[in-house]
Amino acid sequence: RLPVFAPRLSTGLINPNPDVQVSHQEEATATIDGDNGMGHIVASRSMELAMSLAKTFGVAAVAAKNSNDFGMAGYYARMALEEQMLAIVVSNDAPVMVPTYGKVPMLGSNPLAIAIPGAEDATPFVLDMATTATSRHRLEDAVRSGETIPPGLALDKSGNRTEDPKAALEAMALLPLGASSEAGSHKGYGLAIAIDI
Amino acid sequence: RLPVFAPRLSTGLINPNPDVQVSHQEEATATIDGDNGMGHIVASRSMELAMSLAKTFGVAAVAAKNSNDFGMAGYYARMALEEQMLAIVVSNDAPVMVPTYGKVPMLGSNPLAIAIPGAEDATPFVLDMATTATSRHRLEDAVRSGETIPPGLALDKSGNRTEDPKAALEAMALLPLGASSEAGSHKGYGLAIAIDI
Repeated sequence: RLPVFAPRLSTGLINPNPDVQVSHQEEATATIDGDNGMGHIVASRSMELAMSLAKTFGVAAVAAKNSNDFGMAGYYARMALEEQMLAIVVSNDAPVMVPTYGKVPMLGSNPLAIAIPGAEDATPFVLDMATTATSRHRLEDAVRSGETIPPGLALDKSGNRTEDPKAALEAMALLPLGASSEAGSHKGYGLAIAIDI
Repeated sequence: RLPVFAPRLSTGLINPNPDVQVSHQEEATATIDGDNGMGHIVASRSMELAMSLAKTFGVAAVAAKNSNDFGMAGYYARMALEEQMLAIVVSNDAPVMVPTYGKVPMLGSNPLAIAIPGAEDATPFVLDMATTATSRHRLEDAVRSGETIPPGLALDKSGNRTEDPKAALEAMALLPLGASSEAGSHKGYGLAIAIDI
């Protein structure tokens, strides 16, 4: 992801020296203003605050605004495991998901990560998923390996389902988790909306 | 659902007069002991307590134990809308979901409901979904209407994918949301595990 982040930093699209502030805090809830900084910094600070509040209140909710792409949602969820805490992390994203019955991307891949500590020395449980049926990363892998992608997961520029990863990358119009309306794509669509709101 | 609940009540499988108690409460978190009562009663009490705690702390988490089938998860999530609150409701369930690459049901349909108030007079957002690709309800509908079910959503008793709703009902071995491993069934599987834990 460095080729994406480096030019954003050098052109000032992302603020390299953000003044990350808690813009609102009341009991177990808070909002963090990321001052247009790297999402990684803003999300880490948000998790630290959420964990600190959860130590006091048992549970906490922190929202971040004026932030950017934070990379892997699971990283921040896993931070909670070090303190034997459970975490749920979600993020909105630029539009790459086509709603059920739609042709045009309207929602992000809106990731959802959940980390739950294991009992004593047991392995923790970590889920880190996009709410789309596939991801840009998987399309890029398929292009590199010269493979097709499974049918029914992504649209081409004409709005037709495609198995050509290049055509899918050009359009970046991914179907929601569930892929078809019959198989429950309204559920992936619904999860993405809930995360967006 | 009355034909299911009535015999459970009359045979004492469900306690018709439960003594529902808050068995633990600390700051914004609580556990409710349902005394083996109707899930509807236990879940309603749990939401009432969660909403009361959230009014004090901004956010709250309540877990229920010794409860039973609570019907529609979305009902309890919607209770929060009356107070302009957001709610997430989840439940475990008897095993009907076959893990990705599996043949035998190991997890419940583990529903997830999310209710988010609309701004001012706007319509609220309500998601109420099973983490399986289809549901018992949809299989029963298909039997009644004499239709087949979409391919790849459920297994028969031999562990093969079936489009015959009767065979699917007999086995009650539903695939996770995503349906196939290529289309992301590990995500529905992961959501169900997270809810189970």
